[in-house]
Amino acid sequence: MTQKVEIVRKILDSNDRLAAENQKRLDAHQILGINIMASPGAGKTSFLLKTIERLPTSIGLGVIEGDTAPVTIDSDKIAERGIPAVQINTGGECHLDAVMTEMALDQLPLETLDLVVIENVGNLICPAAFALGTHKNILIASIPEGDDKPYKYTNMYKGVDVLILNKIDLLPYIEFRKDYFRQGVEALNPGLISFEVSSKTGEGFDNWMEWLVKEIEKVKSA
Amino acid sequence: MTQKVEIVRKILDSNDRLAAENQKRLDAHQILGINIMASPGAGKTSFLLKTIERLPTSIGLGVIEGDTAPVTIDSDKIAERGIPAVQINTGGECHLDAVMTEMALDQLPLETLDLVVIENVGNLICPAAFALGTHKNILIASIPEGDDKPYKYTNMYKGVDVLILNKIDLLPYIEFRKDYFRQGVEALNPGLISFEVSSKTGEGFDNWMEWLVKEIEKVKSA
Repeated sequence: MTQKVEIVRKILDSNDRLAAENQKRLDAHQILGINIMASPGAGKTSFLLKTIERLPTSIGLGVIEGDTAPVTIDSDKIAERGIPAVQINTGGECHLDAVMTEMALDQLPLETLDLVVIENVGNLICPAAFALGTHKNILIASIPEGDDKPYKYTNMYKGVDVLILNKIDLLPYIEFRKDYFRQGVEALNPGLISFEVSSKTGEGFDNWMEWLVKEIEKVKSA
Repeated sequence: MTQKVEIVRKILDSNDRLAAENQKRLDAHQILGINIMASPGAGKTSFLLKTIERLPTSIGLGVIEGDTAPVTIDSDKIAERGIPAVQINTGGECHLDAVMTEMALDQLPLETLDLVVIENVGNLICPAAFALGTHKNILIASIPEGDDKPYKYTNMYKGVDVLILNKIDLLPYIEFRKDYFRQGVEALNPGLISFEVSSKTGEGFDNWMEWLVKEIEKVKSA
């Protein structure tokens, strides 16, 4: 058991070192990197597509799409919009890591970009342990998932910088105790920056886009 | 890399051996074992609670609840109904395995049971690789997750014996192309037994319960 723990620690250490290098590389290009994590079907791709719609055209965006199977459903949707997108097939692994991120960054035209969005593998457990080198780690929760998720997936809720509560258009049809959800989040990650949105109707995107553009500007002027 | 693959193969081999022993133990007690897998928030616990409501009182049920954190939200809901329930906290691991199952079976009154339901950790990736020793592996998909999941989580959809499509009460509010979903499932797992249900309204439970009771009887008369 001790040996297993030791090996896991070394893997995570070396991942952290490479993640720090990825971040330096983004910084050198004055690019904001964000890592979007969520349960399968929380709406990562729809959220990203709505964000793209609202993004000022002056901002250069690149996207890295993580999947466990060799499907290009998500990256095709992004590429259709003329945005450089790289697909990573993890070959069954349940998360992206810093090595995969480095290889994907190699394929993006970094000199033309201001923002790199990484869509992690749909999973509320594994991705929490692996830093990629992004400046902000973002969790998308969604109304149909239920209000008890912060109590069950504590490592994920603890480790993120921003929480998006998606699919609020479904609130009339689903029992979701916002107070209970918020209490769970607050206990793990006090003062966490949060946005409530609907990627379907666009509700709540003004606040999210304002925050995102400010963060891009911060990296530019750093 | 070869070494890593070799170690993973050995872990899976030894898991499979222990899973076979678990199944023998269930058979010896004429107990049907089912393993319920799903994405976080697909409604595993609500589905189980609705199944419990409909289950003939003559059938003895025991439940094993898998979670990655030491929360007892789900097992408490089951225990409230006077049903023997064991909680497994995986300590951050993204799936149950045959060893955890064996330890949980030790804590259930097997001589009084006809059915053991295992609620796996909410995850569409890791649980697919680890047999527990159950007779039937069941996947719960849900309408809000989206119709593209069979294309993305191929190992999970390939490996199950039964598919439950849950939350069909939300169909009026969510775009879900059933044909596209079904095509994806059929390509991976032709002729898969499927039930469409709403754990909220109870719709579709007659067919599911009929199937379940028949399977329990099969194990009894084997």
